[in-house]
Amino acid sequence: MSAPFVVVGGDAAGLSAASKFARENPDGDVVVFERGRWVSYAHCGTPYYVKGEVDRLTDLLSLSPDEVEDRGIDLRREHEVVAVDTDARVVTVEGDGGESFEQPYGDLLVGTGARAVTDPIPGSRLDMVFTMHGLDSAAAVRAALSSPGERAVDTDVEYVDAELVEAYADREPPERVAVVGGGYVGIEMAEAFHAHGLETHLFQRSSHPLPPFGEAVGERVAEHLRERGVELHLDTAVSELAGEDGVEAVVHENGRVPVGLALVGVGIEPNTELLSETAVELGESGAVAVDGYGRTSVEHVYAAGDCAEDRHAVTGEPTWVPLGLTANRAGRAIGQTVAGDPEPVGDVAGTAVVKALELECGRVGFVGDEAARDAGFEPVSTTITSGSRSGYYPGGDETTVTLTADRGTGRVLGGALVGRDRAAIRIDTLSTALESDLTVAELERLDLAYAPPFSPVWDPVLVAAKVLRGELD
Amino acid sequence: MSAPFVVVGGDAAGLSAASKFARENPDGDVVVFERGRWVSYAHCGTPYYVKGEVDRLTDLLSLSPDEVEDRGIDLRREHEVVAVDTDARVVTVEGDGGESFEQPYGDLLVGTGARAVTDPIPGSRLDMVFTMHGLDSAAAVRAALSSPGERAVDTDVEYVDAELVEAYADREPPERVAVVGGGYVGIEMAEAFHAHGLETHLFQRSSHPLPPFGEAVGERVAEHLRERGVELHLDTAVSELAGEDGVEAVVHENGRVPVGLALVGVGIEPNTELLSETAVELGESGAVAVDGYGRTSVEHVYAAGDCAEDRHAVTGEPTWVPLGLTANRAGRAIGQTVAGDPEPVGDVAGTAVVKALELECGRVGFVGDEAARDAGFEPVSTTITSGSRSGYYPGGDETTVTLTADRGTGRVLGGALVGRDRAAIRIDTLSTALESDLTVAELERLDLAYAPPFSPVWDPVLVAAKVLRGELD
Repeated sequence: MSAPFVVVGGDAAGLSAASKFARENPDGDVVVFERGRWVSYAHCGTPYYVKGEVDRLTDLLSLSPDEVEDRGIDLRREHEVVAVDTDARVVTVEGDGGESFEQPYGDLLVGTGARAVTDPIPGSRLDMVFTMHGLDSAAAVRAALSSPGERAVDTDVEYVDAELVEAYADREPPERVAVVGGGYVGIEMAEAFHAHGLETHLFQRSSHPLPPFGEAVGERVAEHLRERGVELHLDTAVSELAGEDGVEAVVHENGRVPVGLALVGVGIEPNTELLSETAVELGESGAVAVDGYGRTSVEHVYAAGDCAEDRHAVTGEPTWVPLGLTANRAGRAIGQTVAGDPEPVGDVAGTAVVKALELECGRVGFVGDEAARDAGFEPVSTTITSGSRSGYYPGGDETTVTLTADRGTGRVLGGALVGRDRAAIRIDTLSTALESDLTVAELERLDLAYAPPFSPVWDPVLVAAKVLRGELD
Repeated sequence: MSAPFVVVGGDAAGLSAASKFARENPDGDVVVFERGRWVSYAHCGTPYYVKGEVDRLTDLLSLSPDEVEDRGIDLRREHEVVAVDTDARVVTVEGDGGESFEQPYGDLLVGTGARAVTDPIPGSRLDMVFTMHGLDSAAAVRAALSSPGERAVDTDVEYVDAELVEAYADREPPERVAVVGGGYVGIEMAEAFHAHGLETHLFQRSSHPLPPFGEAVGERVAEHLRERGVELHLDTAVSELAGEDGVEAVVHENGRVPVGLALVGVGIEPNTELLSETAVELGESGAVAVDGYGRTSVEHVYAAGDCAEDRHAVTGEPTWVPLGLTANRAGRAIGQTVAGDPEPVGDVAGTAVVKALELECGRVGFVGDEAARDAGFEPVSTTITSGSRSGYYPGGDETTVTLTADRGTGRVLGGALVGRDRAAIRIDTLSTALESDLTVAELERLDLAYAPPFSPVWDPVLVAAKVLRGELD
């Protein structure tokens, strides 16, 4: 019997690969090792669980362990792969009982994900300082926000770390909280804290939140957060989280803000330590380098998801964009490839959307001149504001669009949108245009939707294209 | 002095052309002849005016006549162009005082629009039978729905036909109304009548409303309208509108339905009579044939908007898709071309969106096997239903997607969507894909937006592509 397809990591990339493999090749064996208790959970949903918009932690599971098994996958939770021998094609596994064993593989997929970065900030190991890096931390934060006796977090499912939850559930919740970092996670967590009625302080090193969305989106988000009562500390580097046992204050260059809880969202980094003793190459980003089929530099070893690079749709160069769709799609493609029917993992355009209270934000590609210049282009950018619906139709909102193109070729390089009314989903028009190598003139002539309740005659994306084209001529 | 740019018709195509020409060529002369009193109005907004969602008729004007004049355009309302001599390059105009004069032109744009078809149905000239073909009919219908003394229609602006409005304003409104035809206008008007609390009967010849959106969308719209209390009469051909002076009943093959008002929306036809004595060629559709710059078969004569054909993005063949964006875009391009800087009018993809009470519907290209086969393809279609947001996030809705592709090339040919949550605007992803000649495999690998409040990991469009690709292999 041939060695099984071994998958390290039981989340988006790993389980997508295992499921696709099992479906395409029902006679083949696939084993998934997951070091934690949770599998197949929606990381992107955790802020909404903390907020209370999602009721139960288990609502965030796409598949239960039993459902995974029903797909013909040999799932081993609380099993950590600690070493890989790519010559012998064997991994070393430590099980939940402390036992260690070797597992041969035919093909290996490394889907070890990424972890939240915290260490640059002193004090980040204090009690009541959290990162959002999984369901356990989501459960802990929600428990910490609930009043004693409220029991906001169910501890009656086996996956929940009841001990961790209990440690927070009986304390009085904080009245003031800090979010360090104004990226996706920071913005979503600020929304969650704000919804709990807490005095929420958001700290951002640069001049506006959501830097990858560009200045125009960032400034509008900042204005909106302020209007809704979130305290913004922009251009403010946090130097320390201060406190005795638990966090008591956020210390920054211009002062200190007393808080009872801090959420640190200053970025993530890929989990690649498992491969450090192997010949598998990492890319410049620090994530695993892969080809268009998710293959690493070592035969029979694949990587996908937050630990791996992708190819950028605009530049054709490697990039690291650790997001959910990419992980699912690459995993699925690799499962098919390993099953014998090679399938490309697909490029990434850097598409991302985020909700900031009432505002919807989207971005794709290279937004703004600086980002595009760094990628080797001669960029021209414009920012316009235009209605989301016909002016006479109620319920629309001003939509701000930034659009960036290459002066020489006229090619669309990227863009961002923000507004209350269907702004985020409109980024898909730009994503599709980007992946199709459209020029600004071609974008301007697209036959997009028009009906008063949904869009004006000239959709904001078309208005931006029209204006940018004028600047390109 | 050279002869001016003469435009026939003061709506979307005509005024877009005149405005762009005046901006590009401030020293050139442009004259617009409009036979009615209204210019630059949003035809697509009229159902929402009747519904009451738009308060005043003048809210539907994009530009007032004064604003048009301020752009440097010589606007002559209530001036009808009755003849064209393309050899002498002169049009004959009848003014509002009954006077007639000749106007030489350097270039001529025919933007005469289209009119509602009514004549196939006997009785369509009875009192209280309407079509939606302009602001006067919108005013009349809204007046007819209002109670005596309510004065729902302002008659204090010069454009409103006060006499027409008065004729309806003092009657008791009907309790039961009929909409004949389940296309865009029919659906939007059914929504308007329903919002007034009227017993609303919708008659449709075929088995579902919105035929160009395909069966799946049509059936879901039908189900939704029924649930909300609209009486649907499907597979029902109306043979007569019966009554003495005013309409009293809709007569169809299986019976009669008493009504006090009927709205006929059974299609439109292009206004091309002005060109019947000229050498300007019409296309197979009956609309004016044009090239990629809006030029007709006769030099110096252009046509755009609802009276003209376009080129289809998928087939490259002429097609007639009389919609608002197309008219505005083609007019603008022709204005630029006439000003000396040639600009293509752009292809059409047949993108259309419509609101049906709470449902959002969108369509593009060739939807379903029959339409695609008629266009010369070997089609494969699929219909899927999938969530608009992550399953655990509140507020989403099932989104139904029909996707059609060509078996030989895998190229996407068309698609349609329906759902309550951002379904309509998602059609822009498919429109962009269609105009970029994407295959289903390329569509499946697009990096589209994902965040729980806006979209699941696999957007419904991607789910449809995934399933269709499986059927293509």
